[in-house]
Amino acid sequence: MAHIALPEGFPGIRGPMIFRTETSKPLNELVDVLLCGPSTLTQGERELIATYVSAQNDCTYCQSIHGAIAAHRLGGDEHLVQRVKTDFEHAEISEKMKALLAIAGKVQLGGKNVTTDDVTRARNVGATDLEIHDTVLIAAFFCLCNRYVDGLATWTPEDPDFYRQRAAVVAANGYAAAVTTPGVALPKPA
Amino acid sequence: MAHIALPEGFPGIRGPMIFRTETSKPLNELVDVLLCGPSTLTQGERELIATYVSAQNDCTYCQSIHGAIAAHRLGGDEHLVQRVKTDFEHAEISEKMKALLAIAGKVQLGGKNVTTDDVTRARNVGATDLEIHDTVLIAAFFCLCNRYVDGLATWTPEDPDFYRQRAAVVAANGYAAAVTTPGVALPKPA
Repeated sequence: MAHIALPEGFPGIRGPMIFRTETSKPLNELVDVLLCGPSTLTQGERELIATYVSAQNDCTYCQSIHGAIAAHRLGGDEHLVQRVKTDFEHAEISEKMKALLAIAGKVQLGGKNVTTDDVTRARNVGATDLEIHDTVLIAAFFCLCNRYVDGLATWTPEDPDFYRQRAAVVAANGYAAAVTTPGVALPKPA
Repeated sequence: MAHIALPEGFPGIRGPMIFRTETSKPLNELVDVLLCGPSTLTQGERELIATYVSAQNDCTYCQSIHGAIAAHRLGGDEHLVQRVKTDFEHAEISEKMKALLAIAGKVQLGGKNVTTDDVTRARNVGATDLEIHDTVLIAAFFCLCNRYVDGLATWTPEDPDFYRQRAAVVAANGYAAAVTTPGVALPKPA
């Protein structure tokens, strides 16, 4: 059961987002810019960063939903998402993505862990300042989301199919619009 | 020197905020709602939560500026701010604030650290669901800000007077408007 009285039937971050619309508006605007807006990183690549950081923070809801969205954006490749979560240095992704995920992992531990060498590595394989900026901010943003979701003990569905179906809703509508889009029939939380 | 080419002369989070206005708009909207908007927690109390979490994350810029704003909001009481950072359980604050700071500290470590006992303690001394929600989100938000500021190695002024003077500018204008308000004469970063 969640730590506070959240609206029923909305899992993960969607419960507190409906509970407090004044804060969910800018939160959704931010995630839509970061993960869906114009970028030289693909939407799938950005979702991989979100998924990896959420996995490092051990947030089941966020790593499940963003992992599902990443797979959806990457042609359904759930194996690749799993590989990125557990061993990204040997995953079938670009050297630039490996360098950016390394930076994201340092940010997850705390900002001061990011070194000049980490940034030089990313730049040497083609990362731009904007891509490095967005990687740091995506990683930092999911350190917020993971703590928001777990700090309130929100409802976390267990069925992987729930996340697969929600992924399609989010991919089609964007984050802000998807908060209140049911899209997927859900059992009430126990 | 910062890890990416940020605009000169803007310390801390203001550099990346000017570098990427699409993301700074919702970030500032969020911090204005959380720290300056209508609430049953005073603006000073909310700044204390921001300061405490930033200190736990060892972010010099954020704990300095929000500590200065907290002191400004609390009638200039810098001693109280210092006490909250180092030993809030024995500081001259309400039992409700102590319980909320305990929750904020758990969120800083990771959301799953918040227990039913932590929330019961807060509720028993009068905290509402909205106050508990906002405490969790303020703590989570500063886990973002601290990582954003330090993950990009932004410029951190050392002079405490800089932060005291900026605090007055932010208190008078709010966060969004203050990003580009110079207000305080600054030396160029070394």
